[in-house]
Amino acid sequence: MRGSDEEERKRWRFHGNRPEIGEASASTLRGVYNRVMDSMNKEDPRPVIQLGQGDPSAFSCFRTDPSVESAIVGALESGQAVAEYLNSGLPYKLSPDDVYLTVGCTQAIEVAITALACRPGANILLPRPGYPDYESAAAQRHVEVRHYDLQPEKGWAVDLKSLGDLADGNTVAIAVINPGNPCGNVFGYEQLKGIAEVARKLGVLVIADEVYEQLTFGGEKRPFVPMGVFGSIVPVLTLGSLSKRWVVPGWRLGWIAVTDPNAVLRDFGMVDTIKDCINICADPATLIQGAVPQILEKTDRHFYSNINKLLKRAADLCYDRFQDIPGLTCPTRADGAMSLMVKLNLSEFARIEDDIDFCLKLSEEELVILIPGTAVGLKSWVRVTFAIDPWALGIGLDRIKAFCQRHASKYNAISRLSLYPQLNGIA
Amino acid sequence: MRGSDEEERKRWRFHGNRPEIGEASASTLRGVYNRVMDSMNKEDPRPVIQLGQGDPSAFSCFRTDPSVESAIVGALESGQAVAEYLNSGLPYKLSPDDVYLTVGCTQAIEVAITALACRPGANILLPRPGYPDYESAAAQRHVEVRHYDLQPEKGWAVDLKSLGDLADGNTVAIAVINPGNPCGNVFGYEQLKGIAEVARKLGVLVIADEVYEQLTFGGEKRPFVPMGVFGSIVPVLTLGSLSKRWVVPGWRLGWIAVTDPNAVLRDFGMVDTIKDCINICADPATLIQGAVPQILEKTDRHFYSNINKLLKRAADLCYDRFQDIPGLTCPTRADGAMSLMVKLNLSEFARIEDDIDFCLKLSEEELVILIPGTAVGLKSWVRVTFAIDPWALGIGLDRIKAFCQRHASKYNAISRLSLYPQLNGIA
Repeated sequence: MRGSDEEERKRWRFHGNRPEIGEASASTLRGVYNRVMDSMNKEDPRPVIQLGQGDPSAFSCFRTDPSVESAIVGALESGQAVAEYLNSGLPYKLSPDDVYLTVGCTQAIEVAITALACRPGANILLPRPGYPDYESAAAQRHVEVRHYDLQPEKGWAVDLKSLGDLADGNTVAIAVINPGNPCGNVFGYEQLKGIAEVARKLGVLVIADEVYEQLTFGGEKRPFVPMGVFGSIVPVLTLGSLSKRWVVPGWRLGWIAVTDPNAVLRDFGMVDTIKDCINICADPATLIQGAVPQILEKTDRHFYSNINKLLKRAADLCYDRFQDIPGLTCPTRADGAMSLMVKLNLSEFARIEDDIDFCLKLSEEELVILIPGTAVGLKSWVRVTFAIDPWALGIGLDRIKAFCQRHASKYNAISRLSLYPQLNGIA
Repeated sequence: MRGSDEEERKRWRFHGNRPEIGEASASTLRGVYNRVMDSMNKEDPRPVIQLGQGDPSAFSCFRTDPSVESAIVGALESGQAVAEYLNSGLPYKLSPDDVYLTVGCTQAIEVAITALACRPGANILLPRPGYPDYESAAAQRHVEVRHYDLQPEKGWAVDLKSLGDLADGNTVAIAVINPGNPCGNVFGYEQLKGIAEVARKLGVLVIADEVYEQLTFGGEKRPFVPMGVFGSIVPVLTLGSLSKRWVVPGWRLGWIAVTDPNAVLRDFGMVDTIKDCINICADPATLIQGAVPQILEKTDRHFYSNINKLLKRAADLCYDRFQDIPGLTCPTRADGAMSLMVKLNLSEFARIEDDIDFCLKLSEEELVILIPGTAVGLKSWVRVTFAIDPWALGIGLDRIKAFCQRHASKYNAISRLSLYPQLNGIA
């Protein structure tokens, strides 16, 4: 641990002491099974006879399909593969024991919030706009949520002073989504370091949601920096998944990586709690776990660069076209991830009540699906996911424009008519 | 509904009214997204432009691998395939809307217990011995557990009188595991009907854990009967998975089928709550969902019969060999599933404290892994999973015999010495 033990004990506010999870984990078959397995004499050269676990697929006579065999062998290596993959961006090394595979990033969020809920009355700081699975996971576990604002006028940057002011003695974590969902922003080194320092000062850990890591296309000014780089300042739980970079959302293979070079999370019982949570949860399909080393190590570089090129083209098309649609404001280009936020200037529309109404009517009239900003924490905005085929994106933007023109308020219609008298009688 | 509405309302004790789940579900992206999707004009012939959901794998330009495409198409059909599969054994028809796919049976248990927890102070009746994931799921959701005993001397049958006596006004469900884990028993038609009638009388639903369905080998006297057959007596949540019959435990593809011909579960809000739970959970890998129709419809009949033949041979070998091992009693042959229970006559052993101690020492000395009965609710017994290669099973049974002989108590050792004086000085 950094500093004296005493000093560190006072510093950190989270703890992983939650007897009901430990007990639930120990009393599951997996928990008891692990104890029985652990008591084997490792020096006995005879084969182990497994009459404790119902997995006949491990035996050739019961096997459905040869693919099952390779998947099971591969599963053992997938934690290792994820650790090695993440290590390429870190100043220290994760071991496979630092990586917990989850059923997509959804379960990674659930496990992280469950571990934080060990402290009764805990609250966490979440970005607004953000990704509502965090709010949902927190509500279910009675963790209070406090929102820090991403600032649209500053490229969705975080104001560090406001961030620190939000916290109190019950704050246990700051969640950071980078590259940003839903804003498409990419945080720079200094911004991330600033957040890490605020977290250290507060004595809270950082949840780094890096599910879009490497999906950046803002050029050299906006490279992706993993939060784990600042692991010696503050302990970090890095959440990731195969879904985005490898474009396999349906595979539901995610992870929590414990980037904790000073072993703070270990010493405060958080690692044990995460282990216990993983023990009592459903786990990701072994068939897919088996594919992890292959996909992480063997994917062609051109696949990555091609995806980023496609995303950049789509993001830029959105930004450019939105400048030209009445009633909408898109303040910044997206530099990463797959979506951006567009502001509705509601006074410029007639009979559109709010962002939800806008999206429902747009869906009804134009078969274009957007997410109301309210669903991601920002009223009067909409979220636009641009990771779709270019032809479809173009059609979608055309229809949004037609919709906005049709719904422009009378005031604007009149002011347009006075500017363009030739339109008289048409509008 | 059967009977008058009024009468039915008084009958049933469960309800699915749990605002925090509904709210959590409605506020997730999926919830909002579903509302926006629902407001589309279904008669508009134009293509839908999807800017609401981040699944670029639906678009050819972003696709990793051709296999992803077929998996996504297939996912839509997997609920249908499960419904059709289950319908072959039922007197009425399930639709795909009655089937909820889950991350293995583990998540199906979690969702079912979460729905039951809607009634504050609820308790459920679980079999003893049983499958401890139920106890663990209940403890986490503050649902009280009451155990009904499976009777070893009666082929692990349920005493219906005791079952009914366990319940009180807060009882909401009876869980039945058939074919039985850990006992390997298979309930007959009359026993299941009796349980359904007790449940109806109590006004509780039945959770039918049929994860081992069709894995029966007791011949014509012990066919598998789905609990859903009695759906008009009592509403049934049938839990199943691909893991066991198709020997693909790592695929983590399970389901909850709502077998509710009188629409009781629907009218009492349980179906909505299950939907909401599914909405806020991680879902099974689409890649695997895509494989469901194929595996359910195309698997060769010989595959099934071969598996059952292998299981029967293994179950019988266990039963026969256990008759001959000192200190152990195996009261009945297994007729289904993959495990059986063996009683430890602890007084016949020296320095073996209990079933946990037995399993730890057996693991240490013989590298044979058994599960202590305590972990499945039955002290002084052990659970033996026999779904392993025959050669390994034979070796395992040899080692268990050697272990039991070596640990026989002095009293027995002396009595053996007096019977076999030639052993004097050896034992």
